[in-house]
Amino acid sequence: MSEYPSILLENAVNQMASLPGVGRKTALRHVLHLLRCSEQEVDQFSEAFTRLRKEVHYCRRCHNITDQDLCPICQSPRRDQRTICVVENIQDVLSIENTGQYNGLYHVLGGVISPMDSIGPKDIEIDSLVARLSAEEIEEVILALPTTMEGDTTNFYIYRRIQNAELANPPRVSQIARGVAVGNELEYTDEITLGRSIVNRVEFKS
Amino acid sequence: MSEYPSILLENAVNQMASLPGVGRKTALRHVLHLLRCSEQEVDQFSEAFTRLRKEVHYCRRCHNITDQDLCPICQSPRRDQRTICVVENIQDVLSIENTGQYNGLYHVLGGVISPMDSIGPKDIEIDSLVARLSAEEIEEVILALPTTMEGDTTNFYIYRRIQNAELANPPRVSQIARGVAVGNELEYTDEITLGRSIVNRVEFKS
Repeated sequence: MSEYPSILLENAVNQMASLPGVGRKTALRHVLHLLRCSEQEVDQFSEAFTRLRKEVHYCRRCHNITDQDLCPICQSPRRDQRTICVVENIQDVLSIENTGQYNGLYHVLGGVISPMDSIGPKDIEIDSLVARLSAEEIEEVILALPTTMEGDTTNFYIYRRIQNAELANPPRVSQIARGVAVGNELEYTDEITLGRSIVNRVEFKS
Repeated sequence: MSEYPSILLENAVNQMASLPGVGRKTALRHVLHLLRCSEQEVDQFSEAFTRLRKEVHYCRRCHNITDQDLCPICQSPRRDQRTICVVENIQDVLSIENTGQYNGLYHVLGGVISPMDSIGPKDIEIDSLVARLSAEEIEEVILALPTTMEGDTTNFYIYRRIQNAELANPPRVSQIARGVAVGNELEYTDEITLGRSIVNRVEFKS
């Protein structure tokens, strides 16, 4: 006899537990929650994912998610078309958008170079980035990748690729500032971050 | 413009975030995981829940979940038909089954009496429990409700209802031993403690 009183329940728990970081107890709790919802609500729940998967794809230009040809950011006439911010994934686009501090375009790599995970430059959207730099008039590329070994490797690789592309008007390449987080005590900041924030100090503006 | 680059993505995140304890960031992570799965996999994911909701219902006898008329436990000829273990919900049935220490039947209340949440005795399966005691030959009722104020209230209410039912052969009423820490849910108790608390159950005293 199965652990669960119904094979349908077991199957639903298995599917829910396939989500990242969801254990079997949490999955069961989610599934029992759905059982208490109306049939119509569960239909809407399920349809949201099948419809998303069928109708959504990646933006032809920046590889953000969209249900049209170009994503809303690439389509917007109000965005600065001469700046590209390179990010690892779609969550990072949302995080930067939430700051309200950036008005340019994006390029979503879909990962970072990681030999440990067998992810090489060809597995992420670097060729398409270099192609954009030839096709569009870009003045600045902002590298906004995670401050990890893999992020640093990817930063450096992209920088070299842009140099070697021999563009007529090569863009400036910058990276987001790394330093002590706003609100953090120096005392509790790790040494590498604190050291870098001293080396890369900027002029004081009041 | 919406926070998300696609209304379909926003809808999927909203649906995922409707699950208990799932925040919007976790919901987004789950949804992006589904986007990386094949269309067939997402169809299977969604169908598991719609099918469960359509085809599953409560066992006519014990109110456990089943896709048949009686749940596998009520149907089993190997279970002791003269003992009923009263639990709050289906997770508790699974938890007690996992201990391997119990071989009787269950009665799933679907909640406990909680005036704060407007849950009275009529809102949970107490009448059907008393009806079972008249109809079936039950020798013992084990109360395995959470060791909370609401659980204690429900224990006491059920005990009084059984006394007042004036049954020809009234069952013994016991409760699981207080090895379970006060305030803890059965679902999250380790199997040894929970198993021992069933073996060491004591007679219910008001």
